[in-house]
Amino acid sequence: MTGWLVIAGLGPGDNRMVTPEVTAALAEASDIVGYIPYVARVTPRPGLTLHPSDNRVEMDRARAALEMAAAGRRVVVVSSGDPGVFAMASAVFEALEGREDWQALDIRVFPGITAMLAAAAVAGAPLGHDFCCINLSDNLKPWEVIETRLRHAARADFAMAFYNPRSASRPEGFAKALDVLRAECGPDRLITFARAVSTAEEKLLTVTLAEAGPEMADMRTVVIVGNSATRRVGAWVYSPRRAE
Amino acid sequence: MTGWLVIAGLGPGDNRMVTPEVTAALAEASDIVGYIPYVARVTPRPGLTLHPSDNRVEMDRARAALEMAAAGRRVVVVSSGDPGVFAMASAVFEALEGREDWQALDIRVFPGITAMLAAAAVAGAPLGHDFCCINLSDNLKPWEVIETRLRHAARADFAMAFYNPRSASRPEGFAKALDVLRAECGPDRLITFARAVSTAEEKLLTVTLAEAGPEMADMRTVVIVGNSATRRVGAWVYSPRRAE
Repeated sequence: MTGWLVIAGLGPGDNRMVTPEVTAALAEASDIVGYIPYVARVTPRPGLTLHPSDNRVEMDRARAALEMAAAGRRVVVVSSGDPGVFAMASAVFEALEGREDWQALDIRVFPGITAMLAAAAVAGAPLGHDFCCINLSDNLKPWEVIETRLRHAARADFAMAFYNPRSASRPEGFAKALDVLRAECGPDRLITFARAVSTAEEKLLTVTLAEAGPEMADMRTVVIVGNSATRRVGAWVYSPRRAE
Repeated sequence: MTGWLVIAGLGPGDNRMVTPEVTAALAEASDIVGYIPYVARVTPRPGLTLHPSDNRVEMDRARAALEMAAAGRRVVVVSSGDPGVFAMASAVFEALEGREDWQALDIRVFPGITAMLAAAAVAGAPLGHDFCCINLSDNLKPWEVIETRLRHAARADFAMAFYNPRSASRPEGFAKALDVLRAECGPDRLITFARAVSTAEEKLLTVTLAEAGPEMADMRTVVIVGNSATRRVGAWVYSPRRAE
């Protein structure tokens, strides 16, 4: 029996955004590993064992998945969105460090629709020109690194997508990020708050930085800040393809 | 008869990466509009009219699609990858400027697996930490803008994904970009060339910036440059989740 490990992206929530290769891997799997709400998206069936785990135990989860694959199981590690964007792929590869036995396993990454691209699609095309993607959580890096990246991104005139903008335990970080952005980009820059895109709780709001407040985001929100040319047309927001 | 316009992403090439919502839109469409090789990915059927067009006529193509939707047709504008990343969505929204009649149409954007995320998945997880995404084509912006963005991206310690790195008509741009990157990031930084990911012509190469040459990329290549912590493990390349 030859085990394998697939690190799969389930997209933002709607099953119509799950790719057929991910659906096929889920159908062939013996074990599903992931954060509780993502594992809950997989339909139970005989022969399939679900291994939901809590948040912030990514390395334990990665090692458990690799152990099972090494033991001959067919394991899918599920992330929402894309597994390579602030999700489980990096944790699995980190768990391979120093483990030549695990490095020889059949490991594949199957991409998914990441939250910022689902959010951009609902809003229009705010990421239609050069952009950057920043995880605003300071669990894994100091605030100074985040602030430096925000300033460079603004001076590069990138559009910006922010993941994990705000948590109950660290509400002040996003308020500070908005202050930095207002100072760098001015009050009229457009900012879009896209919450729970493609689910029943989807909510979309575009305002200017002057109007933006930290309470407009929670941990289910992706935030997109336009570049200096990003504009509204009708109900939409888009970034022109050209830059001067 | 009520027309509609869907701007859809076909993913990088493999049909197993086309989302079910895109497949459903293609099945309901009366007209498919897009660049020749992308329209060629749609299976012909009775009642479906294909409108392939050449590259660099994005605005004409967008207006033609909107005209057809306004006339009651069910139109899908196809892009490879994701339509919101250096693809047709921005062109369609630009075409809405000053046209309140078109702004009232039923227009939806259906995301797809964009090339950089498909490339990252094949390589491992090089975009697993903060990153940026730059179109290196200087068709739509001057070289100075590209160079400024490269320098800010390097100083922010972003991983970087480059679309359209090199064309036959402008081979020198990518060589200049590599010079800027070597100066900013040093010779040991990892760079991955991912060509035609998920197709029969897929080719993956990771080298250091010192070893990188412009001939390693063509217009079917996505280039990913790691951040200062990006490293190899086994056959893979990944960016750790933490930054100091």
